[in-house]
Order: sequence, then structure tokens, then C-alpha cells
Amino acid sequence: MYDDSEVAVLRLGHRPGRDDRMTTHVGLTARALGADRVLFPDNAGQSLETVADITDRFGGPFDAELTDSPHGVIRNWEGRVVHLTMYGERVQDVEADIRDAHLSEGEPLLLVVGSEKVSFDVYEEADWNVGVTNQPHSEVAGLAVFLDRLFEGRELEQEWQKADRRVVPMETGKRVESADTESESE
Amino acid sequence: MYDDSEVAVLRLGHRPGRDDRMTTHVGLTARALGADRVLFPDNAGQSLETVADITDRFGGPFDAELTDSPHGVIRNWEGRVVHLTMYGERVQDVEADIRDAHLSEGEPLLLVVGSEKVSFDVYEEADWNVGVTNQPHSEVAGLAVFLDRLFEGRELEQEWQKADRRVVPMETGKRVESADTESESE
Repeated sequence: MYDDSEVAVLRLGHRPGRDDRMTTHVGLTARALGADRVLFPDNAGQSLETVADITDRFGGPFDAELTDSPHGVIRNWEGRVVHLTMYGERVQDVEADIRDAHLSEGEPLLLVVGSEKVSFDVYEEADWNVGVTNQPHSEVAGLAVFLDRLFEGRELEQEWQKADRRVVPMETGKRVESADTESESE
Repeated sequence: MYDDSEVAVLRLGHRPGRDDRMTTHVGLTARALGADRVLFPDNAGQSLETVADITDRFGGPFDAELTDSPHGVIRNWEGRVVHLTMYGERVQDVEADIRDAHLSEGEPLLLVVGSEKVSFDVYEEADWNVGVTNQPHSEVAGLAVFLDRLFEGRELEQEWQKADRRVVPMETGKRVESADTESESE
């Protein structure tokens, strides 16, 4: 986003059909809230298409990719790895260290978001296991709060490039402007 | 949560089967991030059961209810209504006013979270239409960021009552303690 070093999100585990929407929402949340890139398992092609389509229409830069080796991505990551899990340390206790590694030390961050049971190696390979609460809720919610805290709200000011449409914030109603500044409202 | 006046979340629209997980995640996110109550449409009984089961095991207080008239809940709400939508005003521009209404004026808040197309009356009946970004992403992500900002992180310090188990935050691994303080770890 604004930062020099990358923030990528890795979705771990995907059951086609059952997980399509959750995986898509992980990707769209990553894009909307300031990550630079999402990596999906290679059986999540449908989620990839949706995220790429939204990026085409609403702008980037944002990359969505498939990987045939999610664990290889973790092992070979040149930077720090944050695994979001309800069993981890409390986000409010570790977020400053993670921000510091990313912003001051310029470390690229890989945020790992699991679905079903995550294997124990991931806990060991992560530099931080982080819980956005230690309660069961939603990997999408955890990712969203983590990104908002990582960027301290700067992600909300992001300007989108190469968009062909743009939503204009409104008190009531809907307004979408196209890139040639015509607007449609309802 | 800590506050005297209530924060309730209303899920608008639910297609059984297709929306089960998203609706469940809306409820679990509401619970984990400090809301007092969630209201689901009456065809979302399966999501209700999941949320009630998590509350039994991991604690409360938190209520999950079905309503046969989601629009009636909005119209009859005694307090302020916040509709989360990508077409709304920017959260960073309106959150202070909403916090003020809730905390200083003691207004109960109803947070309305749509799924598919939301009817225009909801935009008109809401006191605020609020966008957590004006980008398409996830209603679960939007709700999560909104709650974290509304409570300014206090929700992460919440103590859970009548839980029969509790996750102990750990650097690596998983530890779950039962209420009688025996622990299981992995």
C-alpha cells in the first residue's frame, strides 16, 4: 500500500464449493484493507477470478495468485510470518512489534489465514501466532481487524489506480461514478 | 459489553444453504467483538444454533435471536441505527459521532449488516449509512472493523462469564483450559 515493503495474505486450506465465499472474502478483504497481494491454494481458481474481476473494476494495485505449495510459501518467505489464530498471543500485545518490524525494519509480512485445522508446523514456522481475541469467530473478521491495526487506519485513505468505477460516499443512497466521471445514482 | 447501552447486530437477508456460513460468521464476530446481541432472519435457525452453542462453551453474556420482521426491528428500534454499506459515508469521518451518541448520550445502537441487495428504505431509515472503505469486500470484515473502532479496542479486554472453557494465549501451540482449570494443550 503506502509502505515500501510488501504485505501479502496467504489463505491456507480451501474446500471447493464449501469454502468459495469465505476464500473470496479473505481475498477481497485483503485488497480493500491495504494488503498488496493474496495467495490462494491452487484449487481456489473461482475465488481468484472474483478477486481479479473486482480489481479490474474498482482498481489496484492488487495481485491475486494461486500457489501449489502454500507451505512452501511460508518456508521460503523472505520476511516475517504472522499466523492469525485464536490460540495465539493477543493482538493488542504484539501489534506494536509487528508494525515495527514492518515499518521500521522494512520486513515484508506474510499473513497466514487458515480455514480448517492448521498443521502444527505453521505454528512453529510463524514468527508470531496472533489472536484477534481468543474466541472462535471468523478468519475474515480477524484479518480485517489485524490489517486495520497494522496500518493504523491509513489503509482507509488509499487511492485506487486504474479503476473504471468509483463509489462516492453518501449519507443516503448509492452513487457510482465511472472513470470518465459520469455518475449513476439511485 | 462494558457499556450501559446496548449494541445489537441485525443480519438482513439470509438464503439458507448458501448464506449459512456468512450469517454464522456475522453472529460469531458480533459476539467476539463486543456486541451484546445478534438478530437473524427466522430462516437462519442453523446459524442461531451455532452461535448459541459457542456462547454456551466459550461464555457470554451474548444473545442470539430470530426475528420474523427484520424491517420491523429497524423501524421500532429505540436508539440509533447504523447501516454498514460500501455506499455509505466513510467510517473514519463518522465514527466519532456514532461513539458519542452511544457512549455520551447512552443511545442503544442497532448495526444493520446486509447480504444481497438491501432495499432503499433501509438507507432512509438508518441514522448513518457507513462504509468501511467504499470498496466491495465482506460484510463480516466491515462489521469487525466497525466494532473495533466503536469500542476503541476495549472489546479485546472483555471477560467472558459462564464459559466452560477458555483459550490461553500462547506464542506457539494451542492451550484450552476448562472451567475447573484443568488444561489441554497440544
